[in-house]
Amino acid sequence: MSILSIIKVGGKVVEETASLQKLLNDFVKLPGFKVLVHGGGRSATKISEKLGIETKMVNGRRITDEETLKVVTMVYAGLVNKNIVASLQARNCNAIGLSGADLDLIRAVKRPVKDIDYGFVGDVVSVQTNEVSKLIADGVVPVIAPITHDGSGLLLNTNADTMASSMAKALASSFSVNLVYCFEKPGVMMDQNDEKSVIKELSFDEFKKLQDNGTIVEGMIPKLDNGFAALDSGVKNVIITNTNGLAGGNFSGTILVK
Amino acid sequence: MSILSIIKVGGKVVEETASLQKLLNDFVKLPGFKVLVHGGGRSATKISEKLGIETKMVNGRRITDEETLKVVTMVYAGLVNKNIVASLQARNCNAIGLSGADLDLIRAVKRPVKDIDYGFVGDVVSVQTNEVSKLIADGVVPVIAPITHDGSGLLLNTNADTMASSMAKALASSFSVNLVYCFEKPGVMMDQNDEKSVIKELSFDEFKKLQDNGTIVEGMIPKLDNGFAALDSGVKNVIITNTNGLAGGNFSGTILVK
Repeated sequence: MSILSIIKVGGKVVEETASLQKLLNDFVKLPGFKVLVHGGGRSATKISEKLGIETKMVNGRRITDEETLKVVTMVYAGLVNKNIVASLQARNCNAIGLSGADLDLIRAVKRPVKDIDYGFVGDVVSVQTNEVSKLIADGVVPVIAPITHDGSGLLLNTNADTMASSMAKALASSFSVNLVYCFEKPGVMMDQNDEKSVIKELSFDEFKKLQDNGTIVEGMIPKLDNGFAALDSGVKNVIITNTNGLAGGNFSGTILVK
Repeated sequence: MSILSIIKVGGKVVEETASLQKLLNDFVKLPGFKVLVHGGGRSATKISEKLGIETKMVNGRRITDEETLKVVTMVYAGLVNKNIVASLQARNCNAIGLSGADLDLIRAVKRPVKDIDYGFVGDVVSVQTNEVSKLIADGVVPVIAPITHDGSGLLLNTNADTMASSMAKALASSFSVNLVYCFEKPGVMMDQNDEKSVIKELSFDEFKKLQDNGTIVEGMIPKLDNGFAALDSGVKNVIITNTNGLAGGNFSGTILVK
C-alpha cells in the first residue's frame, strides 16, 4: 500500500506567516501522499473579539453558540484554510481545502448536553472516504478544516485531533497511514521542563501508568487516547512531535507502540 | 456528451435562509451534472461593518484592501460556501465547496491599477479542470466561491459572473454546458418596469443595438459580454433568468443565440 502521512498542526503554527511558511516548506517535502489537518483557534478568538462576541472556553474547549459557529466556519474553513491552500499551490502542491461537509467527508452529531452545554460542537460519527481517496491517489493534498456537518444542514465545530484520527482510521484500509500530531513540544516528555526527556517509544500500558502518576496531563491525554485508538484500528504509525519533527520526513518525537 | 448545468446565483438569494432553501430545492432537481457559483456581497458588507472596515464600491465593484480581502475570503469561501454545501448534503447532493485556489481551479492576476486601484481583485487568467472534471463525472457537485489565487500564494477577490463563464468555457470540451445566470429579474427586458417584456432570444447584434440605444445598461452589459463570449467558446446554451427560471429545469428567461 502507498504511504499516506496525515499531519495535524495546531492553530498557532498555521496562523503566523513565518511559522506557516516554514511548516509548508517541510510539509511539501514529505515523501508519499499527504493530508494536512489544521486548527485556527487564535484567529477565531481575535475575530470574535472584534465582532464583540465573547469567547467562552471550558476545559480548553470553545463553547460554540450560534454567532461563534459563524466565526469558526468563516475563520477555519475560509480564512485559514484558503490561505494554506494558496500557499501550497504556490509550492506546486495541488491542495484542496475541505471541511467535513465537503464530499460528506466527516459527519458528526451535536454533542448531547450533560454537565456543560458546548453548543454547536460535533462528535464524529462517520467518515466517507470514497471521493477523497481518489483525490489522494491522484496526488491531490487535502487540507482539512475542523468543521463537520450533521447531515441535516447543520455545521458543527469539531476537535481537529479527533478529525485527524478519524480520517487516519478510515483511510487505513487504502493506505499505509502515518498519523502525526504536531504540537508545541518535541514529543511526550517525562519532565515538562526538559525537552531532552522526550519518550521515544510509548506503549498504551506505559501511557496509562504515566497518566495515573500525573506525568501525562491535560490536552495530551485525549491526543494519546485518539492516537492509541488509531493504532488499534490499523493506522501504521502514530507520532507526537512538533513541527521541527517533520523536517526530512523522519518524524522524530514520540512514537506510539502496541 | 453529458449535460452540465453551471448555475450562477447572486449573493442575496444565497444569503437569506428562505430563498436559499427554495433555490437548492430547485437546483438539486435539475437533470444532469451541476455546478453552483455563488456570491456573498451582502454578508461581506455586514461583517465588514461589524469589524469597523469601511466598504468602498466603485461601479458596483468592491475595492478590496488587505482587511477586506480577509473578510471576503472568510465570508465567501467559509460562511456562505460551507452553509450551501451542508444544505446540499442534507438533500443527498454530494457537494464540494471550492475556491479558485483549491485544485488550482482558477488562477487570476491582480488587476493592474489604471484610473482606479481595486486592490486585491483578480482577473481570471486560467482554469484547470483536470480534477474537477473527474469529480463532476462522479456525480459530485462543485459549489464555487468567488475567490481565486495568483499561483504565488495570494488570494484575490474575483467577479462571480466571470468565474462562472470561465468555468463554462473550460468545461465545454468535456460536457454539453448550460450556463445560467440567475439574477433578480426574469431575463433581459425591453422595459425595466414590465416583467412581461422579457426578450426570449437575444443575438449579439441585437444586444449591441439595445446597448447603443440605452435599453440594456449597467450590470447586464458585462453579464451579456461574458455570456456571448462563452457561447463563442463552445458553451451550448447561455440563459439569463431569475431563480424561478430554474424550476423544472426548463430555464425560462432570455436565451442567447448566435
